[in-house]
Amino acid sequence: MEVNADDFFKAAALDKPRVTNKVGSNVTLINVMQIPGLNTLGISIARIDYAPLGQNPPHTHPRATEILTVLEGTLYVGFVTSNQPAPNRNKFLSKVLNKGDVFVFPVGLIHFQFNPNPHKPAVAIAALSSQNPGAITIANAVFGSDPQISDDVLAKAFQVEKNTIDWLQAQFWENNHN
Amino acid sequence: MEVNADDFFKAAALDKPRVTNKVGSNVTLINVMQIPGLNTLGISIARIDYAPLGQNPPHTHPRATEILTVLEGTLYVGFVTSNQPAPNRNKFLSKVLNKGDVFVFPVGLIHFQFNPNPHKPAVAIAALSSQNPGAITIANAVFGSDPQISDDVLAKAFQVEKNTIDWLQAQFWENNHN
Amino acid sequence: MEVNADDFFKAAALDKPRVTNKVGSNVTLINVMQIPGLNTLGISIARIDYAPLGQNPPHTHPRATEILTVLEGTLYVGFVTSNQPAPNRNKFLSKVLNKGDVFVFPVGLIHFQFNPNPHKPAVAIAALSSQNPGAITIANAVFGSDPQISDDVLAKAFQVEKNTIDWLQAQFWENNHN
Amino acid sequence: MEVNADDFFKAAALDKPRVTNKVGSNVTLINVMQIPGLNTLGISIARIDYAPLGQNPPHTHPRATEILTVLEGTLYVGFVTSNQPAPNRNKFLSKVLNKGDVFVFPVGLIHFQFNPNPHKPAVAIAALSSQNPGAITIANAVFGSDPQISDDVLAKAFQVEKNTIDWLQAQFWENNHN
Amino acid sequence: MEVNADDFFKAAALDKPRVTNKVGSNVTLINVMQIPGLNTLGISIARIDYAPLGQNPPHTHPRATEILTVLEGTLYVGFVTSNQPAPNRNKFLSKVLNKGDVFVFPVGLIHFQFNPNPHKPAVAIAALSSQNPGAITIANAVFGSDPQISDDVLAKAFQVEKNTIDWLQAQFWENNHN
Amino acid sequence: MEVNADDFFKAAALDKPRVTNKVGSNVTLINVMQIPGLNTLGISIARIDYAPLGQNPPHTHPRATEILTVLEGTLYVGFVTSNQPAPNRNKFLSKVLNKGDVFVFPVGLIHFQFNPNPHKPAVAIAALSSQNPGAITIANAVFGSDPQISDDVLAKAFQVEKNTIDWLQAQFWENNHN
Repeated sequence: MEVNADDFFKAAALDKPRVTNKVGSNVTLINVMQIPGLNTLGISIARIDYAPLGQNPPHTHPRATEILTVLEGTLYVGFVTSNQPAPNRNKFLSKVLNKGDVFVFPVGLIHFQFNPNPHKPAVAIAALSSQNPGAITIANAVFGSDPQISDDVLAKAFQVEKNTIDWLQAQFWENNHN
Repeated sequence: MEVNADDFFKAAALDKPRVTNKVGSNVTLINVMQIPGLNTLGISIARIDYAPLGQNPPHTHPRATEILTVLEGTLYVGFVTSNQPAPNRNKFLSKVLNKGDVFVFPVGLIHFQFNPNPHKPAVAIAALSSQNPGAITIANAVFGSDPQISDDVLAKAFQVEKNTIDWLQAQFWENNHN
Repeated sequence: MEVNADDFFKAAALDKPRVTNKVGSNVTLINVMQIPGLNTLGISIARIDYAPLGQNPPHTHPRATEILTVLEGTLYVGFVTSNQPAPNRNKFLSKVLNKGDVFVFPVGLIHFQFNPNPHKPAVAIAALSSQNPGAITIANAVFGSDPQISDDVLAKAFQVEKNTIDWLQAQFWENNHN
Repeated sequence: MEVNADDFFKAAALDKPRVTNKVGSNVTLINVMQIPGLNTLGISIARIDYAPLGQNPPHTHPRATEILTVLEGTLYVGFVTSNQPAPNRNKFLSKVLNKGDVFVFPVGLIHFQFNPNPHKPAVAIAALSSQNPGAITIANAVFGSDPQISDDVLAKAFQVEKNTIDWLQAQFWENNHN
Repeated sequence: MEVNADDFFKAAALDKPRVTNKVGSNVTLINVMQIPGLNTLGISIARIDYAPLGQNPPHTHPRATEILTVLEGTLYVGFVTSNQPAPNRNKFLSKVLNKGDVFVFPVGLIHFQFNPNPHKPAVAIAALSSQNPGAITIANAVFGSDPQISDDVLAKAFQVEKNTIDWLQAQFWENNHN
Repeated sequence: MEVNADDFFKAAALDKPRVTNKVGSNVTLINVMQIPGLNTLGISIARIDYAPLGQNPPHTHPRATEILTVLEGTLYVGFVTSNQPAPNRNKFLSKVLNKGDVFVFPVGLIHFQFNPNPHKPAVAIAALSSQNPGAITIANAVFGSDPQISDDVLAKAFQVEKNTIDWLQAQFWENNHN
């Protein structure tokens, strides 16, 4: 089978600001589904747009580490370490990033980015160490799954009343990654 | 350096029921910290105890797939798939497991086990595909991190008022994995 | 393709004692052939039953490390290190395991478990670091292969007369793993 | 050892245009030497500046695939496939990339980027699938090594006279990656 | 730290016939212990000498596949597949190899080489897919370990009397790999 | 599907000297295309013939480390390290190898072998850490690709006039690996 340049290429993939969603972000991921030549090569790339005060909400990538750099604006970013002996148990590590700063989110850890500027959008480029990194938006997966997770389970896990869980599950959980 | 059998051994590791925590479970993980001979070998094992109506709350393992079998009692278990095109977007896959049933939780996905029996405890053995799988209890990492994640960020991500977040962050988030 | 919970599940896989074979054991392995969702995930699980004085005879897993815990009874277990400079050349490392003890058999090394109790059976759960670990029972592979290995070769390798090899090859070598 | 955010962060890493070298480019790579938290995580990121008519000359990354997107300007990019049966032997695959286009250079293959615009600079972000991808600028490694490769060998390999090789080896081969 | 060519080099490693051992072979392995530059690179190489009627007796490499080519003489070689469903259960695959023939022994499977010529020696080069492949000579590991494996276990596993095992364990099991 | 020995075997693969090409060498590689049983096993093997004063010209393997031993004659071999901080930047490491010497070429680095003897041929066996290592002959890939790389790009990269590049591209670039 003859290969050609189109197998390794995606035009106009990451150039334009995209309309942001309800929480104020839009992730455009270019992975092996868009570029078949990425198969077995262990990498993908994304552009992320942030509205003023928008966020890419707490999420994980089950199969990839992410390295991010800011192209425009300012981002407040962070991740939480896993359950482990002190002093690193559930530690929240955060930074305010300006243009050109680089930050790393290790594989599988919960992380987010937030644009603290009330007036200006922000833009970042993120690279991920998998041809198909996956994304799990925490609130959506926990409260917006189909079918819903039992409210008995979630009420106890989150230390709230069942009707709080029911209320959360009744919200609209818009997809914000693919 | 001479090796010996103690490098590959942990006595009385998984034999006894352990006192369960606030949400009704106790995970006893034997990984490379307990058995140094596991270094580079890509596996670890755990016993999980569940009180009546207890749960091992929604969590992920950032570096391992888990395969679980029930030793005693009954468990309602499930995981949520990642954000991806339909028909598999944030799909909740669940089963009721009886003694000897086997279930798999793929690497990095949010999963839980719940003991639906109000009178009897349950016990499971779980194996994980890493010498140091890590564990992230979702509620603890999101609401119980140190320092806390900004309530602005969490309020928007979870579609609740900031004072709900503040209330959640004020709870006691007991560690339930190591 | 839509996934569902049955792709990650095997009912009644490991609950019941199985009839043991000629050497007094029975290995029930749940791997990717039983649970297709294990594909690429690097783990599998087994229950092993041991008759009184039964054994899981010397064998290797060509593609996996094993971690084992005893559920019932007592096991005398061990493995032999590979050919390497002293002090670790062909060293036999062994332990007597009781309920809840954990032991590791590193990838590819010859190991066995033996139930020293003349009256009571034993049961163990073992996890393996591959979706398809493979098993090579040494005596069966050496003396029970199809076709047979040349008795010239085996006589010299085992430092016995050819008729001893012929006698061994004439025995019934019952399969005891899959 | 306590981790902190600085282990995963590099300030002002990729924000500013850098002075380009003799061939009109400048690669600023952020790898595990700049961000220690990248250890074992399999990814790094770079900014590449191109002068008008500048190039990032033919080179390879011995341990990484690269995925690149253009931030400003236009780039003519390409790679050459390896020696293999037709129709893919030493095939040159190329594209003109505009802002937001994405292109992949598979691990170990010779590739380059060239800014065809005589008046405007260009800028790209590239991600690499290794914490330490390495870079081998072909001309520099072949003609600018220390000590020099025998001119007998190079003359025959490149089908030129030895004095052509000697002349090439006498040039100044400025480093253009780290 | 400055690297130099000696880190990637071993002089006179594989040139000369070596005195063969009791079973008529001698394996000279060049791995990361002899060439430190092999660290993390996943390969090693060996020369094997065979006396007339000599053999490299049944053994496994716990961490490597082997690919072998004959330099001089003739070899009868084979391996036994693992325990698996028919038609591939404990199947013995063999070939007579002449000079320049190539054969593969997959990772962890029991294999041997035998020189069927009563008058002439044979020589092979073998490459292994690990910087430290390990070798387990079956007879030596089973009957010549230190300390010895229980004769109760071995008698049952090999379907022989305990005094046969005792006799075997009393032999001299010369090391024939390192 | 039943396996058989032919899946792991290639007859008369590496026994005979082959006619050498224009630069005086011939590489005969046995990889997964010749031996299907190599699939997923991470290794391949080659014989290399060298005419008097012949060379295996500067090339890389994008997916494998190579370990080589000389069977006949003498070889002058070397590789160039990648761009990195001093003292290891573009350092040329070389050795003269005699029969039985072993040398390692790390994954992706530019290397060559040259037979300095004006009268006698040389022969080597090389093993590679991939089932499909790939080979990129530098001069052929740079000057002999199809279609050709822009002479603007190459003239600047190699610090020569465009007509020198045009002359090089007009030569016949014979394939010398597969």
